[in-house]
Amino acid sequence: MESIVKYDSKPVLKDPILIEALPGIGNVGKIAGDFIADSLGAVKFASIFSMNFPPQVNPDQDCVVHMACNELWYAKTPNGQDIVFLRGNYQGSTPEGQFILAQDVMEIMMSYDVSKVITLGGYGTGQMIDEPHVYGALSRKELRDGLEELGVTFNPGEPQAGIIGAAGLLIGMSQINGIDGFCLMGETSGFFEDHKSAMAVVKVLTKIFGMEDVDLKELQDKSQKIDELTEQVKAANNEKPKLNELGYIG
Amino acid sequence: MESIVKYDSKPVLKDPILIEALPGIGNVGKIAGDFIADSLGAVKFASIFSMNFPPQVNPDQDCVVHMACNELWYAKTPNGQDIVFLRGNYQGSTPEGQFILAQDVMEIMMSYDVSKVITLGGYGTGQMIDEPHVYGALSRKELRDGLEELGVTFNPGEPQAGIIGAAGLLIGMSQINGIDGFCLMGETSGFFEDHKSAMAVVKVLTKIFGMEDVDLKELQDKSQKIDELTEQVKAANNEKPKLNELGYIG
Amino acid sequence: MESIVKYDSKPVLKDPILIEALPGIGNVGKIAGDFIADSLGAVKFASIFSMNFPPQVNPDQDCVVHMACNELWYAKTPNGQDIVFLRGNYQGSTPEGQFILAQDVMEIMMSYDVSKVITLGGYGTGQMIDEPHVYGALSRKELRDGLEELGVTFNPGEPQAGIIGAAGLLIGMSQINGIDGFCLMGETSGFFEDHKSAMAVVKVLTKIFGMEDVDLKELQDKSQKIDELTEQVKAANNEKPKLNELGYIG
Amino acid sequence: MESIVKYDSKPVLKDPILIEALPGIGNVGKIAGDFIADSLGAVKFASIFSMNFPPQVNPDQDCVVHMACNELWYAKTPNGQDIVFLRGNYQGSTPEGQFILAQDVMEIMMSYDVSKVITLGGYGTGQMIDEPHVYGALSRKELRDGLEELGVTFNPGEPQAGIIGAAGLLIGMSQINGIDGFCLMGETSGFFEDHKSAMAVVKVLTKIFGMEDVDLKELQDKSQKIDELTEQVKAANNEKPKLNELGYIG
Repeated sequence: MESIVKYDSKPVLKDPILIEALPGIGNVGKIAGDFIADSLGAVKFASIFSMNFPPQVNPDQDCVVHMACNELWYAKTPNGQDIVFLRGNYQGSTPEGQFILAQDVMEIMMSYDVSKVITLGGYGTGQMIDEPHVYGALSRKELRDGLEELGVTFNPGEPQAGIIGAAGLLIGMSQINGIDGFCLMGETSGFFEDHKSAMAVVKVLTKIFGMEDVDLKELQDKSQKIDELTEQVKAANNEKPKLNELGYIG
Repeated sequence: MESIVKYDSKPVLKDPILIEALPGIGNVGKIAGDFIADSLGAVKFASIFSMNFPPQVNPDQDCVVHMACNELWYAKTPNGQDIVFLRGNYQGSTPEGQFILAQDVMEIMMSYDVSKVITLGGYGTGQMIDEPHVYGALSRKELRDGLEELGVTFNPGEPQAGIIGAAGLLIGMSQINGIDGFCLMGETSGFFEDHKSAMAVVKVLTKIFGMEDVDLKELQDKSQKIDELTEQVKAANNEKPKLNELGYIG
Repeated sequence: MESIVKYDSKPVLKDPILIEALPGIGNVGKIAGDFIADSLGAVKFASIFSMNFPPQVNPDQDCVVHMACNELWYAKTPNGQDIVFLRGNYQGSTPEGQFILAQDVMEIMMSYDVSKVITLGGYGTGQMIDEPHVYGALSRKELRDGLEELGVTFNPGEPQAGIIGAAGLLIGMSQINGIDGFCLMGETSGFFEDHKSAMAVVKVLTKIFGMEDVDLKELQDKSQKIDELTEQVKAANNEKPKLNELGYIG
Repeated sequence: MESIVKYDSKPVLKDPILIEALPGIGNVGKIAGDFIADSLGAVKFASIFSMNFPPQVNPDQDCVVHMACNELWYAKTPNGQDIVFLRGNYQGSTPEGQFILAQDVMEIMMSYDVSKVITLGGYGTGQMIDEPHVYGALSRKELRDGLEELGVTFNPGEPQAGIIGAAGLLIGMSQINGIDGFCLMGETSGFFEDHKSAMAVVKVLTKIFGMEDVDLKELQDKSQKIDELTEQVKAANNEKPKLNELGYIG
């Protein structure tokens, strides 16, 4: 393991599920994963430091520094499932670094007998979205039916450009190691932090984990602002219909 | 070995020949190698994962992900020769990565007592080609006569810019390890996927492997389209003869 | 340890404090640290060579070459405290290299039972400064009170862009290893080598180390020139008030 | 050792001197070193392959490939001194790679009890030179007198930008290891392959190695062409005197 892992504690976990919630397109995965982690009262138990993160520390409100890192948090769902969240403000800075970090996370999680890997991300369309789909990608096709029942959409061969970074690599590595995994991607324009897309992902996760009664108000409020923004963009485009035809931007 | 090698099976192979068929100029090597592999009903037996490939997975039509990798496939020729194909959609992303991957492939193949290394590639000219030559480069000069009999052309000191990537490195490494090797390069404009150039390479390989009765129809159909394209370009150039004089483009 | 460490001597040090004084914004940290080291008559005892420095040697006035490196110097303060200075003309050339070098320095210093890590740097504002503050960042918040008494200012969450390079990483790594550390950042425009900002940092350090009677004349003379420069810039801006409104430059 | 070293033979060498003759400014070092090696009838005994060279092979006139590498050649001078030449068409492709290669070469040479390291290079001025000096840089100042007697010039603190690549690193590493070393830099405009500058370096080397009666005709002929070129540039500049004032170009 190239990374330096510092443990705050070594929790005993039974067949935990790993949820990856790192920054990405529209920050959908991070927002969704952080929301679930906070809702479950997750507790940080390890920090992963690496030459593959930016070489810096960030001072907090107490002027105490925090070195760029990824963190592992654990929680238990209402239906008794142990979960580990991979959280942080950074993905690896280079392609090689992303691979090494994913390898190291996988090695840690396999030492915990990880039972499943769920990665969260955005599915960028470059267009304003009214009702974001949640798209899925799988480590094996037998996982599809169960997810479709929860409202996940499967778009053959998509995204064509591949799933980049931790969201992709961790599913790929779980697949290699014979562990079930899937990626949930919230449809997003990718133009801003997309809480509405994240909420769509959260709704799928709450069904998986028996968290249907979780309070979504925070995400709903932020989603409403995105709705207003979407309406404004549409109105502007209706006035200048040719702009609308430009369609895909990013 | 830096790469992660996952075996689907461990075939017993007798003095196998390695054929490298990765992407490159005009994709000549990949098209030719994949055609031979498919014609022989090759079977995948190993996947090579590496931080030196792009950090991503690509979903297939079942939304099942595939991590960027190279693959080893094996087959037996009509005349009983075991062959291993190095296939994939990627070469290493960096110069260092290409070297490491070639080293790792060579190490795997030497564990199988590889008897010969044949790498396939394109020989880019930047000009439309009527009848593509197949050029050769060798690990030792004694290999030349046999290949000339099969129609391979030898152009002293060419390509001047060297043979880049796996097609070059694997011959170099076979040479270092005392294993015979040669590179077959189909002449190509390099402007598009060149099935006609690939067919020229395939014809040499069919002679080597006793596959003269293989059905080339698929390649012939695609080659015909390239002929039509070539005619169109020539016609256009005849109308504007000065454009023709520009000659070399790429 | 990836670095090559060559020792001129192996001094016996009691609970030394590490002071990092490498180049950075306004060169504040290097100027301040070098001044303290020279004032205490510090002696070089080790050179750290690395592939992460530029691949070169620099000839001195005797035409004797010096390979790019970092150096460790030791000294004792008037109040009997052993200090090790990390000095040099280079930081690591890449993000990964900076991390590795900080790791290696930390490993060396932990073999000396380092008791505290103080890193020095500049706090760039992009504006001419009359009386530079010295800002602090901490490995733990309990260190704050003592430094505030010495005139260090604490600006919550600042610098927002983080503390980059050795000044940040060494505090982060001391924190990880349970060693107290703080970073002193002299406020600076960042437009030139800022001896005035460095003098402000030096004044804090002299209080920490009982060096209040050190002769600051060299720094005062250079600070005066910076004052003159600042006045000229202000005068010029007063004549062209709109330029002044541009405010932040760097 | 990261490099792959393949030995053609393992010569017995007594306290050999290493001469580095790799490409660089004006190719002065390579031309001079290759000339001396050829004059002494040097024999290749090892090839150094590395991921730090370009990932390619180059076909020769027999269409036999040669993988990018550095080579070690040995020879004996008229006065009985064993010499090893570091030759090739490449330096390491990256800063890190250059460091690693220099380290590996040094490790090989120390296994041969190398007694001295002489690196050859160009000293670029950006101006046409009539009579190129040979400048020196040293691992220790005591080496200066002997070289001055041979006509080497010492320019304090020069080159200010440092000596980059193998010519610098190998002297730096010999210094670290307590081995005498110096760099001979032929003054050159740096605008073209400078055989005249190389001849100046060769003349110093012939004095060191008792080769005063070596036939310099090849270098003299090429130098004469450079003289003619220099005269033409001067004449052109005299006609357009303002161009001359532009002075430094590169």
